[in-house]
Amino acid sequence: MNADYSQILKEIYEETLELQGQGRVAAYIPALAGVNPKQYGIAIQTLQGESFQIGDALLPFSIQSISKVFTLTLAFQTLDEALWSRVGREPSGNAFNSLIQLETEHGIPRNPFINAGALVVADCLISHFPNPLAEIVQFARKLSDNPTVNFNTALANSEREAGFRNAAMVNLMKSFGTIHNEVNAVLDVYFHQCSLMMNCLDLAKAFLFLANGGVNPWNGRSILTGSQAKRINALMQVCGLYDDSGEFAFTVGLPGKSGVGGGIVALIPNSLAICVWAPELNERGSSLIGMKALELFTTKTGISIF
Amino acid sequence: MNADYSQILKEIYEETLELQGQGRVAAYIPALAGVNPKQYGIAIQTLQGESFQIGDALLPFSIQSISKVFTLTLAFQTLDEALWSRVGREPSGNAFNSLIQLETEHGIPRNPFINAGALVVADCLISHFPNPLAEIVQFARKLSDNPTVNFNTALANSEREAGFRNAAMVNLMKSFGTIHNEVNAVLDVYFHQCSLMMNCLDLAKAFLFLANGGVNPWNGRSILTGSQAKRINALMQVCGLYDDSGEFAFTVGLPGKSGVGGGIVALIPNSLAICVWAPELNERGSSLIGMKALELFTTKTGISIF
Amino acid sequence: MNADYSQILKEIYEETLELQGQGRVAAYIPALAGVNPKQYGIAIQTLQGESFQIGDALLPFSIQSISKVFTLTLAFQTLDEALWSRVGREPSGNAFNSLIQLETEHGIPRNPFINAGALVVADCLISHFPNPLAEIVQFARKLSDNPTVNFNTALANSEREAGFRNAAMVNLMKSFGTIHNEVNAVLDVYFHQCSLMMNCLDLAKAFLFLANGGVNPWNGRSILTGSQAKRINALMQVCGLYDDSGEFAFTVGLPGKSGVGGGIVALIPNSLAICVWAPELNERGSSLIGMKALELFTTKTGISIF
Amino acid sequence: MNADYSQILKEIYEETLELQGQGRVAAYIPALAGVNPKQYGIAIQTLQGESFQIGDALLPFSIQSISKVFTLTLAFQTLDEALWSRVGREPSGNAFNSLIQLETEHGIPRNPFINAGALVVADCLISHFPNPLAEIVQFARKLSDNPTVNFNTALANSEREAGFRNAAMVNLMKSFGTIHNEVNAVLDVYFHQCSLMMNCLDLAKAFLFLANGGVNPWNGRSILTGSQAKRINALMQVCGLYDDSGEFAFTVGLPGKSGVGGGIVALIPNSLAICVWAPELNERGSSLIGMKALELFTTKTGISIF
Repeated sequence: MNADYSQILKEIYEETLELQGQGRVAAYIPALAGVNPKQYGIAIQTLQGESFQIGDALLPFSIQSISKVFTLTLAFQTLDEALWSRVGREPSGNAFNSLIQLETEHGIPRNPFINAGALVVADCLISHFPNPLAEIVQFARKLSDNPTVNFNTALANSEREAGFRNAAMVNLMKSFGTIHNEVNAVLDVYFHQCSLMMNCLDLAKAFLFLANGGVNPWNGRSILTGSQAKRINALMQVCGLYDDSGEFAFTVGLPGKSGVGGGIVALIPNSLAICVWAPELNERGSSLIGMKALELFTTKTGISIF
Repeated sequence: MNADYSQILKEIYEETLELQGQGRVAAYIPALAGVNPKQYGIAIQTLQGESFQIGDALLPFSIQSISKVFTLTLAFQTLDEALWSRVGREPSGNAFNSLIQLETEHGIPRNPFINAGALVVADCLISHFPNPLAEIVQFARKLSDNPTVNFNTALANSEREAGFRNAAMVNLMKSFGTIHNEVNAVLDVYFHQCSLMMNCLDLAKAFLFLANGGVNPWNGRSILTGSQAKRINALMQVCGLYDDSGEFAFTVGLPGKSGVGGGIVALIPNSLAICVWAPELNERGSSLIGMKALELFTTKTGISIF
Repeated sequence: MNADYSQILKEIYEETLELQGQGRVAAYIPALAGVNPKQYGIAIQTLQGESFQIGDALLPFSIQSISKVFTLTLAFQTLDEALWSRVGREPSGNAFNSLIQLETEHGIPRNPFINAGALVVADCLISHFPNPLAEIVQFARKLSDNPTVNFNTALANSEREAGFRNAAMVNLMKSFGTIHNEVNAVLDVYFHQCSLMMNCLDLAKAFLFLANGGVNPWNGRSILTGSQAKRINALMQVCGLYDDSGEFAFTVGLPGKSGVGGGIVALIPNSLAICVWAPELNERGSSLIGMKALELFTTKTGISIF
Repeated sequence: MNADYSQILKEIYEETLELQGQGRVAAYIPALAGVNPKQYGIAIQTLQGESFQIGDALLPFSIQSISKVFTLTLAFQTLDEALWSRVGREPSGNAFNSLIQLETEHGIPRNPFINAGALVVADCLISHFPNPLAEIVQFARKLSDNPTVNFNTALANSEREAGFRNAAMVNLMKSFGTIHNEVNAVLDVYFHQCSLMMNCLDLAKAFLFLANGGVNPWNGRSILTGSQAKRINALMQVCGLYDDSGEFAFTVGLPGKSGVGGGIVALIPNSLAICVWAPELNERGSSLIGMKALELFTTKTGISIF
């Protein structure tokens, strides 16, 4: 049961290095555009408490949309099923930042992992917590067992200044009445959560409760009910990678969540969580090397939920 | 390991009977509109060879879109990865019979489970098999271990006469060059496959190879490679219920496929396949009772792939 | 009042000849693809009975969508205002052969000049006339005062064989119940009307009643009421050139109708009708030289309805 | 030539009064929602210098989108044809405040009369004029020959606070790079121009240069070239009433522009301009009584550009 993933990580790392140069670092956020595209790390954290890593696995990076799993978890804790009157749970079939469905579907986002959905979740947190940013960063620290996790305020500000598309979404939803707080307050929470700096090991640890029935494995504290944890996994499976979700299910076959910083976290229920980080993205905004590394991981280990 | 599902089926059956009358039988196919809405059956077939059933589990019904899994499997056997140049593997985010993405995406359907995708798969089978209908019915018989499985020709003809929406799709794809055979030949295969009459037990048996790494459990014959079988499961997970796929993943959490005849088949990898049939549909065309029965099944057994 | 347009036609002809080679002959209809792209003619017919012409103005060509004005006129004669329950009268904002609005707007076309709208008009004529094709050809002969006008049956058949996009539209509308007759019957009428062979002078004459309050100027017979004639002109103004209508209004400023055969007919109320024919099309399917020739015509004469 | 329109205005006024109560005052702008729905006025101004009026023709109201003609004229004066690289000139086929085409067409609005287009025009004015608001109000005063015309700052602020939809549009266009100035600066100009308070007579006078080849008839000053004036008329004809433009062309047949304040201005080239104001709107945001009054005007006078 206590597999040694060191050799497999080594193989994956070597076989995928040749893909460097084939993707493109996210260019629309100035502070991200300057990231070194050669950085590359993988970390695995098992429920048995073992961890495996290779490359830049301890180098913090901007987790971007991976943070949507944290805020969704917080909102799900807080609102439980009532959350789903605010946001749907179907694949959108559109790009992560599309406004089209918002206009035709009365300002209710298809799911909490597209940007519009995460903005609604941020709005929910603002309504519920006096200090939502403190809540989010504390939660990320607790989940990753790393008290040094923090926002990158410079990055958040940089994104805020270029974040016209997200501002368009919040304004459009506000026009439908599906955002309850101030436009700028929602954007502020959103851009800060995206700026969270964590490394591969932090993220593998932080997702482990979802592989463990909602319970934090190292302290036994319940984050979500077992049913809730399964449901977040199911949502990640069908919409975690936007319009790459089908491809990810097809080639990797695990619940996962990507971010335009180049990170992808996936998990094997009752077993482990794995995070790959490589900043160059494919055309749909997923880490090009990350996709391939995770495909190799399930192929080489034979692990699958299907 | 050899669980007895008799009691659970009994509970599910009784708890869901009260939902009768809340959905609506598919009205757009005249021959389906006359189906008795009170029919209701469930069957389970395990890899250990046990079967469990309740209600009208042995009454054949029109499997409709469930047949798309059979034709996809045949095409996947034949074309392997080349199939994916003809059809995508992403959720559509639209209704099962929408033409909008076909127009904006050059006539290539998003996935093989929406109607447009299944029509392309039918086109592939026509190109490859001298007698595709014979191939399909033999395959359904082999998978279900039931040599009496057959098309309902009267139903196929009835659907053909009212099948303007599907005819629109084939013609639109033909205008893009993504259908290679005659429009009527493609429709003929499609409406016949939809008219296959099978009962819940047939379908549970027929899907079992997908829970068994692609191998037919009762005769050890390989239908698909293990990797191919997992990939079909992954596709069912993300697109098997059209724009109800997210809901199904969220509430049931298993790979599955629905048909407007009221059947839904789902499977638990390495364990079993289950088929529920109840003709009344919800607004997105899934069996209303079927959705609830499967949700109760995973809740009561605690089984989940997540 | 009796202007001599000979010199202006000569200037226009010479100034636009250099545009030959910049557009592309419609390729999707095999029989049209073989047309000599260098053909080019212009004809003017005035209410005073004078006519002016240059180039290939007496060479018959396939009028294609210009025929939609004839069938609309016939249907308007027959159904009067009841026609507008079957088809709208707004610009579509989409290409002439788009199915998207049909799907989202219950199978009712935006206006009678996009293909879907003309197919509905054809359906109306089939419901009303025992022999709609005879009716259409007689009407074209009567309007153009040319008894030799006829269908090009070979062309109609050629279009029918490649007409998958139009077949898709009729089937889609049929699925919504907004087409009353057989799919093939509707397509047959449509492809025949498109195959009508007329020359520039025929068409200038045939449109003259619309510049004359609905009355045929050479025999005083009323084709439409004055109000109806004005309304068809208004519709041509806002939707006669599909998604080139704004451009045409902006640069030419006259009511007009184009066809992918390369013809454009425009008219000046109370004055004249003018037809330009040059087969090479711009990206939106309008005759490239035709657009420029008509722009020069209104610029040089100073004529405008605005 | 010097017609007396007094009697016709009286008839129109009386025949349309019964329509009061059938439309709805624009509710989405708080300051407009409180307008007395019974207000109703008509004014005509002829090129010969005569004016005719009835009802509340001298009561100033919020001109809203009618202001788009003034800002377009200013931008056309300034940028001439270069303007059209910033905004299209085709009907949108969508509602006045839709974002869908912006997303699929790279942030370039279809025409200057939908909100997105007017926001781009406002952006052009900001780039060109040190004080665009002063420019706009001076221009409205000059065109209407009324030095008391002014913004309603309270209304502009009220709209600004509820203007999330317009804010969404500017942000979306900004994300495409098709807005050059600050989001708030653009919104500020736009909401101020919409708040201009003018009465029916002011507006009839202000549009008269468009019926006069671009020349202000009472002082002979050229506002636009004749060609430019015709082009604005053509644009009003095809897109002046958003998705009511086809209907307006069909039933009224004149170039015109509407505003959600309930005003509609139309003009007859070489003759006159007419403004109707009645705050109750139809479902597409046009004054319900205004549409009918103008239809009656062209029917009763027999005037038409077609």
